[in-house]
Amino acid sequence: MTIRDYIVSFVDPSFPDDAPLPFPVSEMRLKKNHVLTSIGQTEARAYFIQQGIVEISMNNDGNEKILEFFFPGQFTCAYTSFLTQRPSDVRLTCLTDCVLEMFERRHLMEAYTTSLLANQIGRYATEQIFLMRTKREKEFLTISAEERYLNLMKERPDILSIIPVNKIAKYLGVHPESLSRIRKHIS
Amino acid sequence: MTIRDYIVSFVDPSFPDDAPLPFPVSEMRLKKNHVLTSIGQTEARAYFIQQGIVEISMNNDGNEKILEFFFPGQFTCAYTSFLTQRPSDVRLTCLTDCVLEMFERRHLMEAYTTSLLANQIGRYATEQIFLMRTKREKEFLTISAEERYLNLMKERPDILSIIPVNKIAKYLGVHPESLSRIRKHIS
Repeated sequence: MTIRDYIVSFVDPSFPDDAPLPFPVSEMRLKKNHVLTSIGQTEARAYFIQQGIVEISMNNDGNEKILEFFFPGQFTCAYTSFLTQRPSDVRLTCLTDCVLEMFERRHLMEAYTTSLLANQIGRYATEQIFLMRTKREKEFLTISAEERYLNLMKERPDILSIIPVNKIAKYLGVHPESLSRIRKHIS
Repeated sequence: MTIRDYIVSFVDPSFPDDAPLPFPVSEMRLKKNHVLTSIGQTEARAYFIQQGIVEISMNNDGNEKILEFFFPGQFTCAYTSFLTQRPSDVRLTCLTDCVLEMFERRHLMEAYTTSLLANQIGRYATEQIFLMRTKREKEFLTISAEERYLNLMKERPDILSIIPVNKIAKYLGVHPESLSRIRKHIS
């Protein structure tokens, strides 16, 4: 999926094939482990994932926490830093080789002042990120690590073949040994 | 602050005094403890708080969790249900007497199809809610209840005179007794 496909699917089904996007984008091909945004960096770009997985992580006294995995068909960036223009407290890393569409924050901000379509895209993408974050928060508040693991397997059944188990444990907020126990218990 | 003031402050400084809003709003005056949205209800409305505080809470096996307090100058609703049109798993309650501007989801959705301004408002308000939720998630992952309490006091120094201590404990995710210990420790 490309940004153009995203627009047709979710924002404006009548978006013409030959109409220009409301902001310039360029394609990037990046290798696994490439860091898109470092902690401390102020986010000036955003990405749309065509292929691959991007991980958002943060450091807590040397202890890595994984906040989210982003998959093809999703926008991603260090969004808090992107919005506030303060240094990022999260790191964006390509968890696999990635093909991304990249666009500059300043171009998006410019488009936001006049373009209905740019605002529809930005609003819809932000709504989706809000839904992801809220779902995760509610899961942390209300269900066990085992249930969170089962939900993840249901939503992303292929995740275990792509993402190392220690990263899934960091995402679920459990020790790798606890995740092994959960997995044994389920199988 | 009204929606009109919000637009001028955050979205379009040149918005004319006499221009119509992109969707109809009506004022509501509600008493303390009024439930705006019940658990199980599908959210069809959203609100802008002119005066008062709105609480968003959820139930976990009879155990109440407070997800967020909303203050004057903020939009609020059961936003996950509003976006997905599935039954809400949160409850919206007026924690104090409130003056709200209310608007219907269907009017907003209609405005989203053609109005640049409606999309700019929706995008900006969603960005702000995203920032709130993400900040809260990061705080839960990285700092102690005592530090979360100190942050809350710094950001909302008047909160203790308005919101009962047991509700603040539910918001911080600690037992009321732990919050008492934290408060004694600090003073």
